[in-house]
Amino acid sequence: MTKTTPEAPAAKSASKSASPVSPLAPKGGFPKLPKIDGVRFASAAAGVRYTSGRTDVMLAEVCAGASLAGVFTRSSTRAAPVVDCERKLAALPDGDDAGYAIIVNSGNANAFTGGAGTEAVAAVTGAVAERLSLPVTHVFSSSTGVIGEPLRFERITAALDTLSDRLSDDAIGDAARAIMTTDTFPKGAAASVELDGTSVSIAGFAKGSGMIAPDMATMLVYIFTDAAIAQPVLQDMVRDLTDRSFNCITVDSDTSTSDTLLMAATGRAGNTQIAEADSPAARAFAAALGQVMTDLAHQVVRDGEGATKFVEVRVTGADSDADARRVALSTANSPLVKTAVAGEDPNWGRIVMAVGKSGARADRDLLAIRLGDILVAEKGWVAPDYREEDGAAYMKREDLVIGIDLGLGSGAATIWTCDLTDRYIAINADYRS
Amino acid sequence: MTKTTPEAPAAKSASKSASPVSPLAPKGGFPKLPKIDGVRFASAAAGVRYTSGRTDVMLAEVCAGASLAGVFTRSSTRAAPVVDCERKLAALPDGDDAGYAIIVNSGNANAFTGGAGTEAVAAVTGAVAERLSLPVTHVFSSSTGVIGEPLRFERITAALDTLSDRLSDDAIGDAARAIMTTDTFPKGAAASVELDGTSVSIAGFAKGSGMIAPDMATMLVYIFTDAAIAQPVLQDMVRDLTDRSFNCITVDSDTSTSDTLLMAATGRAGNTQIAEADSPAARAFAAALGQVMTDLAHQVVRDGEGATKFVEVRVTGADSDADARRVALSTANSPLVKTAVAGEDPNWGRIVMAVGKSGARADRDLLAIRLGDILVAEKGWVAPDYREEDGAAYMKREDLVIGIDLGLGSGAATIWTCDLTDRYIAINADYRS
Repeated sequence: MTKTTPEAPAAKSASKSASPVSPLAPKGGFPKLPKIDGVRFASAAAGVRYTSGRTDVMLAEVCAGASLAGVFTRSSTRAAPVVDCERKLAALPDGDDAGYAIIVNSGNANAFTGGAGTEAVAAVTGAVAERLSLPVTHVFSSSTGVIGEPLRFERITAALDTLSDRLSDDAIGDAARAIMTTDTFPKGAAASVELDGTSVSIAGFAKGSGMIAPDMATMLVYIFTDAAIAQPVLQDMVRDLTDRSFNCITVDSDTSTSDTLLMAATGRAGNTQIAEADSPAARAFAAALGQVMTDLAHQVVRDGEGATKFVEVRVTGADSDADARRVALSTANSPLVKTAVAGEDPNWGRIVMAVGKSGARADRDLLAIRLGDILVAEKGWVAPDYREEDGAAYMKREDLVIGIDLGLGSGAATIWTCDLTDRYIAINADYRS
Repeated sequence: MTKTTPEAPAAKSASKSASPVSPLAPKGGFPKLPKIDGVRFASAAAGVRYTSGRTDVMLAEVCAGASLAGVFTRSSTRAAPVVDCERKLAALPDGDDAGYAIIVNSGNANAFTGGAGTEAVAAVTGAVAERLSLPVTHVFSSSTGVIGEPLRFERITAALDTLSDRLSDDAIGDAARAIMTTDTFPKGAAASVELDGTSVSIAGFAKGSGMIAPDMATMLVYIFTDAAIAQPVLQDMVRDLTDRSFNCITVDSDTSTSDTLLMAATGRAGNTQIAEADSPAARAFAAALGQVMTDLAHQVVRDGEGATKFVEVRVTGADSDADARRVALSTANSPLVKTAVAGEDPNWGRIVMAVGKSGARADRDLLAIRLGDILVAEKGWVAPDYREEDGAAYMKREDLVIGIDLGLGSGAATIWTCDLTDRYIAINADYRS
């Protein structure tokens, strides 16, 4: 078998020139996540690819009676595990009350592996189902890492005894570490909220160096709660909140073929089940879940390859929210804007350029551009009170807000991104010789 | 006035780390271009911005009775000269037989300069009209360089006597040099063709370091011919051929706010005027013109900032030509594909990723990917006979062809691009402090 896209050399060449942890990593390290009643985790070093003994498989077991929801990449070249998850989720019968399992490996993405990929998914999920006495339709899997190589699934199934022996309600942090690939730090977030006098908890973790990484380091997200919530309500909520969190980040506009978000709600907290999307309990829960998802999304951007700046692009005054999103994405994905941010250059002309090419309705002479609170340009020209020194001083910050007001209507959108540095090139050019 | 986006420091920081001329520059240098009967050129050092005495203004005078056509950027934040050109071109009366002038300066793009920008255009074109005894509606202008600073138009008008004294039918090469900004070489191309026994010539020049450059180094293109061709036919032909040449190149997906292409046909060759788009003469002329435009477009890509590879992305088998173009652009603009090319890494998985995110219909299991003639992947997996060493050897070439067959229909498209290197970052991050 030809080795097509090794991950290791890229990581190695990158580590030559910079510290192994992103300068934008959360200062406090991985947060203490609450136990979620009804969910147990385990991780193991299965040797899928890494030979260093690092953990590379995580198993999550979710109790009977839980609700499961998911969102997946819209890429037309989705990897085998994604296709399997989508089919299983769509086919889940109403009132089905068996438990669930989620098994995730790093080291190999099982992507572009032809029919062998589908067979590997069936082998892994089948073995987990047998070991945990679950229907195979309730076992979901993700894979992340090298592509184009067959997944040595027998190494994963060989680790299942160890994994099931280790299942514990206190091992979520280890699970977050087991799914890392080129991530420089594990990503976790939690929240709790009162629903009719009952406290419920939410805990989640994610991996991803931006949308992308050497070999398309996938974004994977797993979130758990002890709240009781009907599956259709949870599914709609997760999809909607994904649009406002993970679908509002971009590192370089490239999209993984394996992106997956799965969320399980065990119902063990004992709250009255949330059955209506527009109930006060649903709104309170969605607010807390949205916080967790946005926090995780920001962490993914902060671990963007080569990132030295976290940038919020805030567009207002557009004809529509859709137009505002076009402008925000055009700006956040513009190599010229991103390199200007890397160089701490308040180059507002590049922002005007990004507005112009976005396809959204815009009028140069109504445009206003701000860096934080500093009004830089208005009415198609530099603002009378703007001083270049102020812009230059602002650009030295680690966290930046670029404000764009189109002056047309009330459409608004926010996108989070990072800068584009020579370290991104070093990581991705993958000088192998 | 605040200096917003200086060009010079970026150019300086770039020159630190690499040779001043692109490694992809045409080996023979600037070609010998034919004289075009009815067109005269002049250039001068007006000191618009550069103080080194380099030429920074060019004037082209086109004889009475000529046809003029143009294509402009679709950016919604177009610079003042572009807006002026568009209006004048749209308003040209039929059968108007005064001559034309085109005046172009480098050093200042007259972009994002509010109402002052429009006044500067009026001042420059008005002065040229007076000096050459032309209606101001027949004088077209372009500006390229720094943005956000007022254009010192009086420096250009002060050079008009010198320029008109120097007008010569043999100065096209100097004109090509006068409009360069961050270009590392001047760009010219020519062709000749027999129309009903009469030989006609085409000569053109362009500037642009890709679509983009520090401060959005605009793409400007000026083409001249002695053929007789009716204005509506010429306009349609130029628009159509632009879609197949300049609109098929991308360096980094960013779009200048000043892109302009102007073409003049003097009719002095004495051929029977081309009055119908589907005549044999029109087809023959379009073929020659297409050659010139594609040649110039390729030269712009070869001068892409930091480029070390010229890449043709050739998509076939799509549902439609539009879908093929989506896949080709998604691939050519993907930072992950471009960095893999820079690193000479035959990372075909990133190509599959780019297909997947393009929005075009695609089926992973029908996809075939080629590097030159080497079949790399088919049916969603690596091709049985593919050897990584072959791919790696191919990637060492300077000119590459990435072939993507979607296996669905007969839609096809070709896009030309370059790689993404750390020199692009160095040029654009503009470390000014």
